[in-house]
Amino acid sequence: MALSSDWFSEICRGSGTAFSLEIKEKLHEEQSLFQKIEIYDTATFGKLMIIDGCTMLSTRDNFIYHEMMSHPALYSHPDPQRIVIIGGGDCGTLHEVLKHPGVNEARLIDIDERVTRLSEIYFPELCASNHDRRAIISFEDGIQWMKNAAPGSVDIIIVDSTDPVGPAEGLFSRDFFIDCLGALRDNGIIVQQSESPFLHMDIIKNMHHAMRDAGFNHVKTLNFPQCIYPSGWWSCTMASRTNRLDDVRIKDINSRPFETQYYNADIHRAALALPEFMNHELRFGQAPD
Amino acid sequence: MALSSDWFSEICRGSGTAFSLEIKEKLHEEQSLFQKIEIYDTATFGKLMIIDGCTMLSTRDNFIYHEMMSHPALYSHPDPQRIVIIGGGDCGTLHEVLKHPGVNEARLIDIDERVTRLSEIYFPELCASNHDRRAIISFEDGIQWMKNAAPGSVDIIIVDSTDPVGPAEGLFSRDFFIDCLGALRDNGIIVQQSESPFLHMDIIKNMHHAMRDAGFNHVKTLNFPQCIYPSGWWSCTMASRTNRLDDVRIKDINSRPFETQYYNADIHRAALALPEFMNHELRFGQAPD
Repeated sequence: MALSSDWFSEICRGSGTAFSLEIKEKLHEEQSLFQKIEIYDTATFGKLMIIDGCTMLSTRDNFIYHEMMSHPALYSHPDPQRIVIIGGGDCGTLHEVLKHPGVNEARLIDIDERVTRLSEIYFPELCASNHDRRAIISFEDGIQWMKNAAPGSVDIIIVDSTDPVGPAEGLFSRDFFIDCLGALRDNGIIVQQSESPFLHMDIIKNMHHAMRDAGFNHVKTLNFPQCIYPSGWWSCTMASRTNRLDDVRIKDINSRPFETQYYNADIHRAALALPEFMNHELRFGQAPD
Repeated sequence: MALSSDWFSEICRGSGTAFSLEIKEKLHEEQSLFQKIEIYDTATFGKLMIIDGCTMLSTRDNFIYHEMMSHPALYSHPDPQRIVIIGGGDCGTLHEVLKHPGVNEARLIDIDERVTRLSEIYFPELCASNHDRRAIISFEDGIQWMKNAAPGSVDIIIVDSTDPVGPAEGLFSRDFFIDCLGALRDNGIIVQQSESPFLHMDIIKNMHHAMRDAGFNHVKTLNFPQCIYPSGWWSCTMASRTNRLDDVRIKDINSRPFETQYYNADIHRAALALPEFMNHELRFGQAPD
């Protein structure tokens, strides 16, 4: 049965799957310098941003992704003060990071200013902290920025990128991870979105290898549901040279001065549990280091 | 963008979402006495069974559902010997249950014999234990069967049903749960598929209430990914009158005499972790009893 034109469908290349949302109207479409950006108003998921044909975020379900890209890494670090976000132009991750009172500076570096300008219009709730005095937002190449970063100057690097094709491809490489390692202080952590465990296990596996090759001794993948992404099952991968990633500040999670909709201490631990097939694929990776 | 006719799409009524699989060919279609059954050969997910327009199972991803519908309940019971499966005509749950050497009898009761006959043809790997001497398969109304079940005769009841519309509606009711409670022995557990936490929280909440009203003192929902079901995020709910469901036989899980692809001891614990919004909705349900 074919869906009518009232639906937006993302066909996941190679996987033979597609996910669709019922659309009320297209609100915007443009070709930026880097990518094609579309904004839709959906019937049940609020606003929807599409980049180069791929679903990026919806009003309704972005909370899971943004909470899981920020809080597990920040609560795995004893005292995260300086945060760098590569990508993340919708500003949702920045908004979560700035909820941590100990953060002194959160720098967002996205290559495409148009993503942020459109997010300010269509996802204003995600941009609510853009004028926080601790926020620094710049539009430039994150790979280049990381090459020039002052050594040992950052506590957490969050790579909140699109899929590893097009402008984001370099963000999944060993060379980029080496630059990240150099920028991180002791106990520093990088966390990166790492696609679907069900559909893209090869990407997760390659990321583990590239991170370890770059000098990150501890690498752990976290699972979470994400309805609008291919397979509905997504992941992020944390890595550190010296931080074993298992000394989680549980007490601080339980007394956090902000509300979450998805994340809590039980979910943090649960996200680290790997199904058998992932244990098998990552048997040199996630096992106790 | 509309998908071509080479895709099967399940539109999830009311949720404004659809999931699609690329199809090679339709292998079978029939209207049984109870429901319309279709079988497709997909491009990347193997065979696909559709009942009344809803995806039931695929060769590629059914392992998650079948493992999670059986092993958590069986390993939460000290010595499960007699198992009853209501629904589950594809026989995948029966196959998992019979992997437990302590099981003496596993009785499958599905209202629609055609589901089993088609599964024998198109999903033979799920029917591999149908002739096990401990298996009893009958085609009758599970609700009626449970009314007449000998009191205190069953250790685990697995309700592996379709959605709560049509023939399966009664399987989500207080009256049915009262009959199940009567059929269970001490320490007995019922486990039932409970739809998507993201899309159907009202169904999960109603199930908790109905189970508690029926006399089940301990009720816990488990989360797991299921790519082909609406939102890609699914759940089952376990309940017991006397078994607190937290005395899991971890040692037996770790030394299990069979392989799993998804389930293990970490996943068992992780599946019980609830996100904040579920904790909020089930605050009278899942909290320590």
